[in-house]
Amino acid sequence: MAVINTQIRLASRPAGFPDASNFRIERAPVPELKDGEVLVQNHVLSLDPYMRGRMNEARSYAAPVALGDVMIGGTAGEVIASKNPAFAVGDKVVGSFGWQEYGVSDGQGLKKVDGKLPLSVYLGAVGMPGVTAYIGLYDIGEPKEGETVVVSAAAGAVGSVVGQLAKLRGCRAVGIAGGKEKCDYVVRDLGFDACVDYRSSSFVDELRAATPNGVDVNFENVGGPVMDAVLSQLNTFGRVPLCGLVSQYNATEPYPLPNVAALLWKRIKLQGFIVSDRMDRWPQALADLSAWVAEGKIRYHETIAHGIEGAPEAFFGMLRGKNLGKQIVKLV
Amino acid sequence: MAVINTQIRLASRPAGFPDASNFRIERAPVPELKDGEVLVQNHVLSLDPYMRGRMNEARSYAAPVALGDVMIGGTAGEVIASKNPAFAVGDKVVGSFGWQEYGVSDGQGLKKVDGKLPLSVYLGAVGMPGVTAYIGLYDIGEPKEGETVVVSAAAGAVGSVVGQLAKLRGCRAVGIAGGKEKCDYVVRDLGFDACVDYRSSSFVDELRAATPNGVDVNFENVGGPVMDAVLSQLNTFGRVPLCGLVSQYNATEPYPLPNVAALLWKRIKLQGFIVSDRMDRWPQALADLSAWVAEGKIRYHETIAHGIEGAPEAFFGMLRGKNLGKQIVKLV
Repeated sequence: MAVINTQIRLASRPAGFPDASNFRIERAPVPELKDGEVLVQNHVLSLDPYMRGRMNEARSYAAPVALGDVMIGGTAGEVIASKNPAFAVGDKVVGSFGWQEYGVSDGQGLKKVDGKLPLSVYLGAVGMPGVTAYIGLYDIGEPKEGETVVVSAAAGAVGSVVGQLAKLRGCRAVGIAGGKEKCDYVVRDLGFDACVDYRSSSFVDELRAATPNGVDVNFENVGGPVMDAVLSQLNTFGRVPLCGLVSQYNATEPYPLPNVAALLWKRIKLQGFIVSDRMDRWPQALADLSAWVAEGKIRYHETIAHGIEGAPEAFFGMLRGKNLGKQIVKLV
Repeated sequence: MAVINTQIRLASRPAGFPDASNFRIERAPVPELKDGEVLVQNHVLSLDPYMRGRMNEARSYAAPVALGDVMIGGTAGEVIASKNPAFAVGDKVVGSFGWQEYGVSDGQGLKKVDGKLPLSVYLGAVGMPGVTAYIGLYDIGEPKEGETVVVSAAAGAVGSVVGQLAKLRGCRAVGIAGGKEKCDYVVRDLGFDACVDYRSSSFVDELRAATPNGVDVNFENVGGPVMDAVLSQLNTFGRVPLCGLVSQYNATEPYPLPNVAALLWKRIKLQGFIVSDRMDRWPQALADLSAWVAEGKIRYHETIAHGIEGAPEAFFGMLRGKNLGKQIVKLV
């Protein structure tokens, strides 16, 4: 009896904010495995802001998803059939099978994990978002003890790790998030020193009050006016790891950086990066993150949607900031 | 008989482009030397774009020149009297005496030079502008053999060295300058591979044609639309040492950076710097530059004004880009 695989494919490219019409559900039997191939049942799918960029035709980090293709995405699951000697049935694996219930692979890009932590964690704090936080903060932000680190989207999968890594380095960690619930979570559950609600009418004043010694590292996930506010608080020799611009992903006009001269006279380093540029740093980052999560030094929260058909709605919610912590779709 | 010292002092702060009314000439006898002091007759005064920033009250790199104070500036000259055992009459010295004919110092910040090269060179290619080029290009720009380096204000004191340093590193060096005379000088006399006239109506197309493999390092001296054009040509992992924004120094409204998203998806590093941040690098930079100038590997040109009273007009000319190479005021 053939296994039926439900997939979400890109049906059309969005103009502005995406909607359900941009996706198409398809069901097809899983093909027979060839020699060297592995069949994985995906248990969890990761939803991340970068996916919005891949829906555009325009040049972004990487090639766009082609019309009609399965939406890309990180997945974690279990090997349920194998014609590849490197993988056995029952192995827990992380891969990039995208928005579908099953995936077939020749083993390339498939990584076995020990499974000591819940599988979803390998898509979050001990996965791509965690490594993004680690590389962006430690390698580009280079925070020193006693400095102030500000991170936007602080309740998200990356931002929540950034602030905790900053605390581990002896820094003051200040988050920016949308709404009281998220800000409370960031301070109470994650241990940030402060969190400022960017929706507040006195946001700029509150940010100033939360950063009495200015800002040394601005880990930027959001862009737009929130970024402007943090940049204006930057100290001389401040660093800006530019990780994301989620406020801009659905914008049809680019948002400019208002004050280039300040970058000069404050001698700011602003550097765009993506985590796949630095594959050499992944092993160390994953080892550290895995240990710190196991020791409870890094905590995480997940917002969980159920079933592959729920992925588009969960994705829209994440782009609107409705998730707290990592947005996951549970498939099993 | 007292020596009379002619000085140019800041009389008022400019709104927009400065004019003669912002300066005041003063003549006063040189004071009697105290123990430990040195009297220097300045032979040459350096005029540089950063001085415009110091005329403003607004925060810049450093403290502004106070109203009524002598305008700041690098000088080179000769010790003509000394009550400091570290300096003898006849010593050639580089200092920061500003816009005046004589200076008294306790020796701090005064640096003896061997005088093998003309004194003005220690204010140019083997001085602050040369070290600025060296640190900005080599330490922040990190050019690799075969890469393309673009530098704006290419006929200026810093830009002219940047392109030649790029050639020494095995790069393609492309200058941007205003007018055919400067562009010809940059290519024929300095050995750049190409130079594009930013005043040309087809500037953007010409820049594109001059950088067929894109741009890896944009050494930025100018800002504004010229910078936009180069940024749009940047390759993935491009570096932007942000050295100056001379097009903006007289602007009353800041000019924004139009496309922050491109910095992210191209993973650009944009870093503001000033040469005094890295004093530890000066000895190596000066040793290299001095050798390369002596060997003819780095060439330079000077635009020379005569007499301290001519400094303001020469300064206005430099801000308008009328100089070719280093703008010097000869005082002796």
